[in-house]
Amino acid sequence: MNVAVEHMDSVADIAMRARKSSRILAKLPTEARNTILLNTAGCIEEQAQEILAANALDCDKAQVEVEEGRMASSLFDRLQTSEKGVADMAAKVRAVASLPDPIGRTLAVSELDNDLMLHKVTCPLGVIGVIFESRPDVVPQVGALCLKSGNSVLLKGGREAANTNKVLAGIWIRILTKFDEKLSGSVNLLHTREDVAEMLKLDGLIDLIVPRGSKEFVNYIAMHSSIPVLGHGEGICHVYVDVAADLDKAMKIVLDAKTNYPAACNAAETLLVHHGIASRFVPQIVEKLKAAGVEVRGCARTRELAQSASVIEATESDWRTEYSDLIISVKVVDDVGEAIAHIEQYGSQHTEAIVTEDQATAAEFMESIDAAGVYLNASTRFADGFRYGFGAEVGISTSKLHARGPVGLDGLTTYKYKLYGDGHTVANFRGKQAPIE
Amino acid sequence: MNVAVEHMDSVADIAMRARKSSRILAKLPTEARNTILLNTAGCIEEQAQEILAANALDCDKAQVEVEEGRMASSLFDRLQTSEKGVADMAAKVRAVASLPDPIGRTLAVSELDNDLMLHKVTCPLGVIGVIFESRPDVVPQVGALCLKSGNSVLLKGGREAANTNKVLAGIWIRILTKFDEKLSGSVNLLHTREDVAEMLKLDGLIDLIVPRGSKEFVNYIAMHSSIPVLGHGEGICHVYVDVAADLDKAMKIVLDAKTNYPAACNAAETLLVHHGIASRFVPQIVEKLKAAGVEVRGCARTRELAQSASVIEATESDWRTEYSDLIISVKVVDDVGEAIAHIEQYGSQHTEAIVTEDQATAAEFMESIDAAGVYLNASTRFADGFRYGFGAEVGISTSKLHARGPVGLDGLTTYKYKLYGDGHTVANFRGKQAPIE
Repeated sequence: MNVAVEHMDSVADIAMRARKSSRILAKLPTEARNTILLNTAGCIEEQAQEILAANALDCDKAQVEVEEGRMASSLFDRLQTSEKGVADMAAKVRAVASLPDPIGRTLAVSELDNDLMLHKVTCPLGVIGVIFESRPDVVPQVGALCLKSGNSVLLKGGREAANTNKVLAGIWIRILTKFDEKLSGSVNLLHTREDVAEMLKLDGLIDLIVPRGSKEFVNYIAMHSSIPVLGHGEGICHVYVDVAADLDKAMKIVLDAKTNYPAACNAAETLLVHHGIASRFVPQIVEKLKAAGVEVRGCARTRELAQSASVIEATESDWRTEYSDLIISVKVVDDVGEAIAHIEQYGSQHTEAIVTEDQATAAEFMESIDAAGVYLNASTRFADGFRYGFGAEVGISTSKLHARGPVGLDGLTTYKYKLYGDGHTVANFRGKQAPIE
Repeated sequence: MNVAVEHMDSVADIAMRARKSSRILAKLPTEARNTILLNTAGCIEEQAQEILAANALDCDKAQVEVEEGRMASSLFDRLQTSEKGVADMAAKVRAVASLPDPIGRTLAVSELDNDLMLHKVTCPLGVIGVIFESRPDVVPQVGALCLKSGNSVLLKGGREAANTNKVLAGIWIRILTKFDEKLSGSVNLLHTREDVAEMLKLDGLIDLIVPRGSKEFVNYIAMHSSIPVLGHGEGICHVYVDVAADLDKAMKIVLDAKTNYPAACNAAETLLVHHGIASRFVPQIVEKLKAAGVEVRGCARTRELAQSASVIEATESDWRTEYSDLIISVKVVDDVGEAIAHIEQYGSQHTEAIVTEDQATAAEFMESIDAAGVYLNASTRFADGFRYGFGAEVGISTSKLHARGPVGLDGLTTYKYKLYGDGHTVANFRGKQAPIE
């Protein structure tokens, strides 16, 4: 077992070794990286009992904390795995192995001059730091994403999953070391908050930090490191039901966007309704939402139309709130322009949807809205790497730089320009200057 | 003339108006944006005398400061323009107009389910802040890049060019306003350091900061803002001359990389020579470098081979130094592995070159080196947006995220996912999950 797991080295030492291993990893052919993933998947299955025993240990401790009120029971639920959970871990590692190779892809080629060829080729970022909460399936899944894309990784999980994570990271390290001793530094487990604080300072050694957790957590990490951070802020998503909407579609979409999984960042928080169909749509949708257990908070016009004392008055702060719960705010607007202005003011540039059958209005909305996802007649819940067909997801980014929206393996790569010449100098360069892209 | 130029508003007000204008700009068709650029180019030519008069005013003031030792004469040189300089400004704006449109490009399309189509389409970032030193040609050039890519821009130039910049920014604003009153907020001039400090805090309103200047300046900006920064750190570039090098090519490349424009970030700072050809190559190249006025600092083996008392002893700090001047450090290495390790330790991931006729060695170098540019038998000086065929350059990035190496118009864009459905909900989604890329 790698010494990193035993936590005898400084985080800088661990990161340095991770970088060395990443250089080897970056040059491995596709099949070699896939073999490592497939062998790990096999090993996860073989060691299912060890994984479950370690998880039981973590769960026993956590159970006491839940009983003593020191841990939320939702955290406990995410911590606990099962035989099926372990089988899923292996399956997901195999799924990543089957994805197309994200590195070594030629994005563009151009001839700058006679015999002077420029190639733009994808390559790994290098070393990734990932900080996550209790769910132990992050270790196999994120490990697979990082290794598939040729990156080393430093993983810091929640202390409540310490035993489970140790066994799972140990499997990665064992398989890597068996494949090539020099790869032993590619997967590493950090243990304490102090480790994280140290990692955040390692500018030159770590290329990207992926914090998985709440908006506050992501912001905290971003504020405390000059290493680039990939993570999302808020998901204040809207559904706008236009005057030209098919109201059956609108009903289905609003219910799905709000109730399918309200804790997700791509769930809708606010419903905007065109006043021209409000008298028909608002009473119906409020009734359905209430029937689905949703608390409805509305503007004055909404409350009047709903004729239901149970629609609470929405205040200014409602428009700014990511409920992450079975609560929705509803506002009647005069036209698509007011809907767009509302979204511009209160939205978080995550995912915004319009329901309409009018092509011009749809185009106006799709072009005007500045968000990672802009949807026509579809639920905001589609904003997800698996549904987008990426096979696996690093996270969802609400940043506009590097990667926006659901991020797959591509988000863990960069590119380099390879220039092939034959003694070419700039002094003698006239240049063809053909655009490369 | 826009009030922004008269500096009556807060930077937040200016940025807010810039964002509003950017929404209009983002929806303009390609020809409209090109027309704005072409009209501006024409106006620059028509107003050449006003521009030159304003520049003369700036130069008069600067001349006094140079005489009093309060300004470097190199700064004065960059400040001064001429009839030809003004003609070049117009020509460069026209050149940007003739480039392919970077926005509205479809990067990928996939069918997630029946009648559920996902499009990944490029779009503008929104509002860009650009901070630069004396050169007044930045105002037309960066203005053209930002508007072409559908972005509004806040420009802060050096105070020494205040009059010239005011006339040039005024031309942009006049042309934009004439085209559409609502576009008047698209180009803005900031005036003071306090303006910059205020701009750096405007997270939600400004999407990207481009500081053009020294490494220290770029680092300072990055440290003082949580807005993403596009800029380069150091350019410590190496040329490695392998045992299998064609020594004539090596000679030409080393001389070009060092002497063609030593102040550029893509100039070579260190020459690495394989010991197998060192006895033939080192004396020759040292002689040529000295003849070109280059100060040579060498390792012990280099100094022995050069048999020239004029090769100064290189110290540890030389390997870490970007001279930006006619100085080079030279080291004899045992093999390509030592060259790669030296570059890994001391390089800045900017541009690295190998000179060799051996394919295996070339491949080893090209794959192993982690830098924005890795070159075979070509001068490091090729790392440049114009030479890469981008037509124009925002800057060179030594970051790995978003944009790496020379950055053209693409660096000023992001993308959004447009999803077109027909009432699709996640609850009913089975999915085709075809990879999007």
